Amino acid sequence: MNQIGSATLLFPRRPFVLSAASVAGKAEEAGPFGHVFDEIVEDDRLGEKTFEQGERKMLLKALTRTMTQVSLPMEEAGCLLAGDLLNQIVTASYAARELAIPYLGLYGACSTMTEALLLGAALVDGGYRRRALCAASSHFATAERQYRFPLEMGTTAPPSAQRTVTGAGAVLLGQAPLLHTGFHHIRLEAATLGRVRDLGITDANNMGAAMAPAACDTIGRHLGDRGMEVGAFDWIITGDLGTFGSRMLRELCQEAGIELGSRHLDCGAMIFSPEQKYHCGGSGCGCSAVLLAGYVLPALERGEVQRVLFLSTGALMSPLSACQGESIPGIAHAISLIHQD
Amino acid sequence: MNQIGSATLLFPRRPFVLSAASVAGKAEEAGPFGHVFDEIVEDDRLGEKTFEQGERKMLLKALTRTMTQVSLPMEEAGCLLAGDLLNQIVTASYAARELAIPYLGLYGACSTMTEALLLGAALVDGGYRRRALCAASSHFATAERQYRFPLEMGTTAPPSAQRTVTGAGAVLLGQAPLLHTGFHHIRLEAATLGRVRDLGITDANNMGAAMAPAACDTIGRHLGDRGMEVGAFDWIITGDLGTFGSRMLRELCQEAGIELGSRHLDCGAMIFSPEQKYHCGGSGCGCSAVLLAGYVLPALERGEVQRVLFLSTGALMSPLSACQGESIPGIAHAISLIHQD
Repeated sequence: MNQIGSATLLFPRRPFVLSAASVAGKAEEAGPFGHVFDEIVEDDRLGEKTFEQGERKMLLKALTRTMTQVSLPMEEAGCLLAGDLLNQIVTASYAARELAIPYLGLYGACSTMTEALLLGAALVDGGYRRRALCAASSHFATAERQYRFPLEMGTTAPPSAQRTVTGAGAVLLGQAPLLHTGFHHIRLEAATLGRVRDLGITDANNMGAAMAPAACDTIGRHLGDRGMEVGAFDWIITGDLGTFGSRMLRELCQEAGIELGSRHLDCGAMIFSPEQKYHCGGSGCGCSAVLLAGYVLPALERGEVQRVLFLSTGALMSPLSACQGESIPGIAHAISLIHQD
Repeated sequence: MNQIGSATLLFPRRPFVLSAASVAGKAEEAGPFGHVFDEIVEDDRLGEKTFEQGERKMLLKALTRTMTQVSLPMEEAGCLLAGDLLNQIVTASYAARELAIPYLGLYGACSTMTEALLLGAALVDGGYRRRALCAASSHFATAERQYRFPLEMGTTAPPSAQRTVTGAGAVLLGQAPLLHTGFHHIRLEAATLGRVRDLGITDANNMGAAMAPAACDTIGRHLGDRGMEVGAFDWIITGDLGTFGSRMLRELCQEAGIELGSRHLDCGAMIFSPEQKYHCGGSGCGCSAVLLAGYVLPALERGEVQRVLFLSTGALMSPLSACQGESIPGIAHAISLIHQD
């Protein structure tokens, strides 16, 4: 039985990560991790009529690739748990329409990738599904026009702004590894459910600061619930706090007696190089999804790292709630991944 | 172990329904089920500045009531699984901010209530959470201005239209019944994950027709996966197909060799009386949520019905996807509830 009072779920059968794929855009290719993505889309519309249809095609590419690279037909995915940033998560839902497999739509803003993984892990670990396909996507052009301004306006961004990553990542979980193909050494041992935290940030160009308190809260509870220290993890990776939000997270953790030190990485701070001048870095569900699929999981599979705490971080406001003067609530869900020979 | 090839999840430990609450609006009070709701809100804004803040307060009332009526503090809820119809599900997320418990945001449009219940049931049945609080809400005024037109325009509705229900429903699941309080005789035995179905309907005023194929698909698979007949259920209840969509569902099922007959009920067709002239009936996540909490669960607890298949039905389009010429994909998740002495 799990520790019930806590917000941490233990997975006694430790589901396997079987396969993962990432598809990203040109700006992401130009960043320091450009070489790790499975596919780069040359055209932001992917040959479709609209950016939204392009984003959907990008997510479908990631989902299909995750299955085909381990020679499984889509029906073998068990179910799809996915979400994105668009109103009514139309990227995920219309992608699910093409696949005709059981589908559970999620909305956790940029925390979606770990929300999908922790629910997928519970379904697989609990014996309800043999496998679960977990995914998230975001797209610079669709997010910009929905959350901020039409691209045609050429609005300039303040120094605290981050650029929404154009990218889709997908991860297949399963009860047992596949024969002769896919990953064999990555297992999901635990997860911590996020709580909504809000310190009153109202600036939609400063989302890192809005999400850092939630990340600090979840890291603290994960360590506390499991009686572990930071040193038990090679990496503690947040989703898209960016450079400013990451600094804030380290300070908040310090105040809480948690010294993250060099074990902390942030996908948003990593994905672009300073020369690209995207201010505080990358954001969006796709940011943590593509770096998890393209960089973190392969490093775990090869045994370069032994244990990773991975937290996608989400800002849960809407353009309407912002107009109505609401502050920005943040959330972060964590999963603990281990290398096992 | 569950039947893995199928889309049906079996819950061997059969989680209990411990408590449920419903809060609805004046139009819902005036309907044939007005007397079953726990609370009626007299003012659409609930004393708040905006309709959106009013909807949030309504959801919070349902959540709080579900816990207080069984004398449990909110921390004992285990986690909140919830969603609504607003962009970025701000109703659920901002409500979660007030409660400070672990939160998983869902988007299944009007299928959200059964999506929350099936995921909550898996978390409880699998031993990951002792309890789970599942909820959904919708509001006529917030949905109308987001999906259609500002109320001030006074647009007339075509005969196939449905009225979004102003209502919030919440259900608490648990591993064991509570002492001397709450429900003791309702258990969740199985669930079927929905697949996205789309027959090409593009009329946002005809959502019943867009969702009926998904409901038919899920009912057929639930019965097939479990080797059961319609007769095994006292009621097979859909969420918000409305009168037109319900007729379409019965015809689609007939073509598939499934005779629903009088065992089929639809929350959308039930919630308003014809004299209220809301055309095809009610819709919205709140529609199935309030009738589940206020009518179906009490009937199961009293043993008036022994087994119910309950399917909330969702239309997964967005205003943007509609403008871009996309058809409306539908989805329906099913849960099987039994009375047990």
